[in-house]
Amino acid sequence: MRILLTNDDGIYAPGIHALLPVLSQLGEVSIVAPDRERSATGHGITVHHPLRVEHYCIPDSQVCAWMVNGTPADCVKIAIQALLPEKPDLVVSGINAGSNLGTDVLYSGTVSAAVEGAILGVPAVAVSLDQHVDPNFSYAAPLTKLIIERMLQNGLPPNTLLNINVPAGGEADIRGLAITKLGNRHYENSFERREDPRGKVYYWMCGNVVDAENDPDSDVSAIEKGYVSVSPVHFDLTSYQIMHMLENWQLHDVLK
Amino acid sequence: MRILLTNDDGIYAPGIHALLPVLSQLGEVSIVAPDRERSATGHGITVHHPLRVEHYCIPDSQVCAWMVNGTPADCVKIAIQALLPEKPDLVVSGINAGSNLGTDVLYSGTVSAAVEGAILGVPAVAVSLDQHVDPNFSYAAPLTKLIIERMLQNGLPPNTLLNINVPAGGEADIRGLAITKLGNRHYENSFERREDPRGKVYYWMCGNVVDAENDPDSDVSAIEKGYVSVSPVHFDLTSYQIMHMLENWQLHDVLK
Repeated sequence: MRILLTNDDGIYAPGIHALLPVLSQLGEVSIVAPDRERSATGHGITVHHPLRVEHYCIPDSQVCAWMVNGTPADCVKIAIQALLPEKPDLVVSGINAGSNLGTDVLYSGTVSAAVEGAILGVPAVAVSLDQHVDPNFSYAAPLTKLIIERMLQNGLPPNTLLNINVPAGGEADIRGLAITKLGNRHYENSFERREDPRGKVYYWMCGNVVDAENDPDSDVSAIEKGYVSVSPVHFDLTSYQIMHMLENWQLHDVLK
Repeated sequence: MRILLTNDDGIYAPGIHALLPVLSQLGEVSIVAPDRERSATGHGITVHHPLRVEHYCIPDSQVCAWMVNGTPADCVKIAIQALLPEKPDLVVSGINAGSNLGTDVLYSGTVSAAVEGAILGVPAVAVSLDQHVDPNFSYAAPLTKLIIERMLQNGLPPNTLLNINVPAGGEADIRGLAITKLGNRHYENSFERREDPRGKVYYWMCGNVVDAENDPDSDVSAIEKGYVSVSPVHFDLTSYQIMHMLENWQLHDVLK
């Protein structure tokens, strides 16, 4: 099995290196990852300037690795469409330092890399650890391998990926595993206004999470309760429910 | 009614200025848009450097306009959460020079701006013209206003936006209007490998659209046939269908 490994924290981040040995037990791993942190890039791609690709030697490893001056979605695209000799059988993105839950997956480079894998017809998994500071991936990495093995046994339907989030801590802190839907993440006080030394105004995006209204079966609730969350994600943004409603709006009339 | 107008082609692009007079007939318009073209940024947001905001004077207009050194999603966030005195009643993004159809909406800054409006609880519309070169917005702009009026009469459900695409040409070229789902856009030969004058390799993302397998009720098919497409879009990426399937995978066992 050929596995493409990527992330959005950049090729030097410890989360991607934690996955390498466990995924190597499953097959031949290639790494194509951003040359620096590219978190919160969403599903951005690079079309206005060219992409540079450099080989990267991973210490104590024979793994073929490249770093790209682009986004996570760029990395998956260029890996599959230009760099790798054969299409991979699996795309894995992570382990991200920090969760990617609910509405936030729209902004997540980690999840977007896996979405790009699914768009290009490759089963894909995104995995994040709910720990920004001093993340310890020693539990999440082998757990990811076990979930992937189960996924490979059962087969993931096309146009789908799994978004895995793991609570901080180790085995003793984990209360269970939940199949979840994506919850809501809302923020308040999201821009901090400052003045630079020349008196010019600038803004930092920030803000506190306010998750008042989450279903118990959401990923947000699962992580709060100490559960590993596994959310199946697709990329069809059509609201089919509303589609039928729109038929009654007689929109054709506006052309007359 | 207060309307926030934005785009991803930047505040100087003609498409946003084509919408200004027609939207001004509906209410008080404020513009908060990127200071340069930011297409294909997807739902990226700016968290690693601060945002700068500058007032921009629109010729022959009293409209309050700001330009931001960020993405379209940044613009909507900072407009609603920091710049505007009151929450707008409507977010409009466009008119984009070039269509935003099917899978491509994931990469689209135009659509992501409208998605951000919906996330922040404001009804939102994205509108694109299927014409990259010398776009003529004189038909699409008033048509957008008519569709918005119909939307306001009927009420758009929460967490939803409309993604409108208008065929190139004028009234005589339009064959009708279709309520559509998002189709598939596939590309082939997507990276062009070149060498710079110093012999170093770089890649341009490019490629031809290959739309072999689109439903007749998709936006891709509608535009091909000369129809205006109106797709209802939501931002819940959960694959509910697969969620039930995952329950049978006995994933809890991996923790044992």
